[in-house]
Amino acid sequence: MDRYQPPTRELKLARREARSERTVVRLESGASFGGDLLAIAAGPCSVESAEQIDATAKAVARAGANLLRGGAFKPRTSPYAFQGLGQRGLELLAAAAGRYGLGVVTEVMDPRDVPLVARYADMLQIGARNMQNFALLREAGESGKPVLLKRGLSATVDEWLMAAEYLLLAGNEKVVLCERGVRSFDQATRNVLDLSVVPLLAELTHLPVIVDPSHGTGIARLVEPMSMAAIAAGADGLLVEVHPDPASAVSDGSQSLRPEAFAGLMEALAPVAASVGRRLPAASLAA
Amino acid sequence: MDRYQPPTRELKLARREARSERTVVRLESGASFGGDLLAIAAGPCSVESAEQIDATAKAVARAGANLLRGGAFKPRTSPYAFQGLGQRGLELLAAAAGRYGLGVVTEVMDPRDVPLVARYADMLQIGARNMQNFALLREAGESGKPVLLKRGLSATVDEWLMAAEYLLLAGNEKVVLCERGVRSFDQATRNVLDLSVVPLLAELTHLPVIVDPSHGTGIARLVEPMSMAAIAAGADGLLVEVHPDPASAVSDGSQSLRPEAFAGLMEALAPVAASVGRRLPAASLAA
Amino acid sequence: MDRYQPPTRELKLARREARSERTVVRLESGASFGGDLLAIAAGPCSVESAEQIDATAKAVARAGANLLRGGAFKPRTSPYAFQGLGQRGLELLAAAAGRYGLGVVTEVMDPRDVPLVARYADMLQIGARNMQNFALLREAGESGKPVLLKRGLSATVDEWLMAAEYLLLAGNEKVVLCERGVRSFDQATRNVLDLSVVPLLAELTHLPVIVDPSHGTGIARLVEPMSMAAIAAGADGLLVEVHPDPASAVSDGSQSLRPEAFAGLMEALAPVAASVGRRLPAASLAA
Amino acid sequence: MDRYQPPTRELKLARREARSERTVVRLESGASFGGDLLAIAAGPCSVESAEQIDATAKAVARAGANLLRGGAFKPRTSPYAFQGLGQRGLELLAAAAGRYGLGVVTEVMDPRDVPLVARYADMLQIGARNMQNFALLREAGESGKPVLLKRGLSATVDEWLMAAEYLLLAGNEKVVLCERGVRSFDQATRNVLDLSVVPLLAELTHLPVIVDPSHGTGIARLVEPMSMAAIAAGADGLLVEVHPDPASAVSDGSQSLRPEAFAGLMEALAPVAASVGRRLPAASLAA
Repeated sequence: MDRYQPPTRELKLARREARSERTVVRLESGASFGGDLLAIAAGPCSVESAEQIDATAKAVARAGANLLRGGAFKPRTSPYAFQGLGQRGLELLAAAAGRYGLGVVTEVMDPRDVPLVARYADMLQIGARNMQNFALLREAGESGKPVLLKRGLSATVDEWLMAAEYLLLAGNEKVVLCERGVRSFDQATRNVLDLSVVPLLAELTHLPVIVDPSHGTGIARLVEPMSMAAIAAGADGLLVEVHPDPASAVSDGSQSLRPEAFAGLMEALAPVAASVGRRLPAASLAA
Repeated sequence: MDRYQPPTRELKLARREARSERTVVRLESGASFGGDLLAIAAGPCSVESAEQIDATAKAVARAGANLLRGGAFKPRTSPYAFQGLGQRGLELLAAAAGRYGLGVVTEVMDPRDVPLVARYADMLQIGARNMQNFALLREAGESGKPVLLKRGLSATVDEWLMAAEYLLLAGNEKVVLCERGVRSFDQATRNVLDLSVVPLLAELTHLPVIVDPSHGTGIARLVEPMSMAAIAAGADGLLVEVHPDPASAVSDGSQSLRPEAFAGLMEALAPVAASVGRRLPAASLAA
Repeated sequence: MDRYQPPTRELKLARREARSERTVVRLESGASFGGDLLAIAAGPCSVESAEQIDATAKAVARAGANLLRGGAFKPRTSPYAFQGLGQRGLELLAAAAGRYGLGVVTEVMDPRDVPLVARYADMLQIGARNMQNFALLREAGESGKPVLLKRGLSATVDEWLMAAEYLLLAGNEKVVLCERGVRSFDQATRNVLDLSVVPLLAELTHLPVIVDPSHGTGIARLVEPMSMAAIAAGADGLLVEVHPDPASAVSDGSQSLRPEAFAGLMEALAPVAASVGRRLPAASLAA
Repeated sequence: MDRYQPPTRELKLARREARSERTVVRLESGASFGGDLLAIAAGPCSVESAEQIDATAKAVARAGANLLRGGAFKPRTSPYAFQGLGQRGLELLAAAAGRYGLGVVTEVMDPRDVPLVARYADMLQIGARNMQNFALLREAGESGKPVLLKRGLSATVDEWLMAAEYLLLAGNEKVVLCERGVRSFDQATRNVLDLSVVPLLAELTHLPVIVDPSHGTGIARLVEPMSMAAIAAGADGLLVEVHPDPASAVSDGSQSLRPEAFAGLMEALAPVAASVGRRLPAASLAA
């Protein structure tokens, strides 16, 4: 019978054997992915206002995050849902991050927007819905900016690595993978966070891997324990949704942590990180 | 517990109640989707050469297809796989279709390519991987060209309809949905062809629905019985991969029918169509 | 990497090549699976009362079913849900079936109940949750009674055929497979009815295959079109839930047809069956 | 539209609110589930011989396991695969466990075998394929023996808890849940280990939860990192496959650890356990 063949055997640049050492992706902001130091990106789903993003940036910097996440261009299932503040959102995001010494990671959805987003971001995020948006992968690859490549909603590991290969083939070596949960039959959680890919990818590729427990579970109360599990499994960092007032968030409120919950998470995470030989970023002096 | 909420309740333009009658999408080539007459699109996965596409067009027109499908821009998991002939492929496709009185349906992947592809195509196909490529949906919507919107690899019916809503909201009323199978745990077939969505969509939306049994199964021998099942379930048409020499196809050979198998399919399909009050296009006199 | 290997290559007795012709399973009641004549089993999810089962039996016999289905032992997710009438249900079921010339198909869940259920049934049903209840498979196999083996909730085709192999290996050649939908990420329908397995199984095994569109969709309005699709795909019969008053059914009311809807289904089905060279049972004279 | 309704709202005995404190399940052997002390069950997939089970028991006891797992009755997809040593396997298992001060956990598949297995085991395991084998649940519940209830291959959390409710309703309060991975579209790992259920179940139920990273991944090299992740997520213990010579194992060799790899796992696990306020069993003095 004819069966679908996984393409991993075709992987050239992203496979583990392609480099003698595992890749460490370093951002201009100072954050890095893949070394002893963990990368902790935190922030709201959407940039909503100057006040909201400043309050969030200050809080997450104080708690020890070294990257500010936040969406200015939002991929929304419904055309009637909030679509993001666009360039104004990028400006607010970059300003807030700058005030507290954080790097900026934010999503780009349209290949035509890559230059614009790259002007404000330290790292371009390619979202789950765009993991196989090949035109976007080529533009992001050619930009040379560090890229955070999220796993598609139901992407196999093979497909995900092949998407990374598009980026590498375009000349961009600064690629970080992000597990964010996959679709499942059970609606108890928003997705199934597939942490096994963390050690599996460590065998298959030299690229760093981080975990997004917010989208991975969709439930704020599960974010802390799954963050701890991710780091124990060997993840190189986390992407966590934090909002000063989740109940009023324009998107993803049910999976966003309050600032104090995020601070609690960082505190609980420190001994777990130490137990596997990793360390958290130092809390920002600026915050 | 917080649970993901499906967005169908937000559907406005695509929902069944938005129109008094079901939409019939008519192409300039004469083919239509949604009336008694079925739409039968057939052709290769990729346009490979003038000879290949001419031979296919001639054969499928003779067997009773009224649309020629074929890819000039190909979404490929691997960057090392054949990526399509691009504009040259569009030219070959349109020329072959013209010779045999067929309409052209072909995929567009990049929002920047919409004007180019629209020049050659009677209908723009948005592929499974791009169902939630919102920039592409907006451009395709604004082009006014009829759009074939394939279901995403693991898209819910709600998400699929919301993607159609993006097209309608951009002012394009000529939208046809295409079920092409969804991801499953079983590798016995490439995807699980979810035919229940055919009658389900007839309740939820006024838009026509066709079925792609080639991607839906990934196995050429299953294409004929699943085509018959699709029409019996109420589908408004089919999208079938046909190649003059599947064993040498640059892509999707294992799920492509030989021309004579496609002719056999059309013959077997006729009484099934009649049994549910539908009819097949007349075989082209030009072929 | 170590990957799970499907066991189909180990299939001996159930594989297509094990017999020169496809198996036709004939019941004592006269119904058969696998020939030109389709097998149509209809009835309530649960046997509830003498009146309910008699009314259903009469109606489905009149509409052309040749088998009465109904549960006396019910596999219920919740221990607080109705668990079935047990032996009293079997008695009511057999009596009603006898009055209208129908064969009886009913589920057995416990290996210790096989002799009891076999006394009343023409065919033992092994439900989706028990597809890999190997003790039950062995007892059902040794009973020699015809067995209807439903596909597990997320069973691969390989696993399903191997479950059939347990029955055949116990000496029972009267095995019929029943596709009833598999688990999926989309809650739009209760399950995804995987009709591609109908032609796929025709290649892999000599055993007959029927389809249960009631559990396959979970939505009564989809049962008729999916029944038509199943027969067009080559299924050897149907298993349909019918209840005289679905709104008051103790279980599965939302997917049960009223008797008049079932009669309409049979009428719509006749030309589809004819279009693929199959015929429906004659309506019972007794009803 | 009719949608499937999850039954958790019907949960009575297993729900968190049913008890003031979380349940701690204590075995006669001294092991317990749910307190500070973790439960570590290790051993081969199948009991194969006196030598094999003795060597394994000795090694896992020495490394700090407090329970010996091993199958005497094996649920096998193929009837031609090794089906277990039966009662002889139970005898060997119990003897080996006794020599090294370990408790015994072993699977029972047939309701008629519950008394036999209960004679040798400290804890009855109900496997994934039997999670909704209600006759077995009732017998196991009535036996009063501690029960390890594995999650079904594609069971929702709701269904799993309802299966536990069957056990509790039969009067058995000694129930431990075991996450062992669920089916997914990706064959990169055997299953997707769904660790999010660990903190989720801590909210929904008072019952302890352990994790089986061996079946959860199917790949021996992933067992150690996923064990660490499980404990970091809050699991009350582990179920790990260990075999003295995985390459010659009659079943599940590719996911079994060598004794020295298991010892390494326990060493790496200790600081992670400490970081979340848990501790490992002391290594057996007898071994």
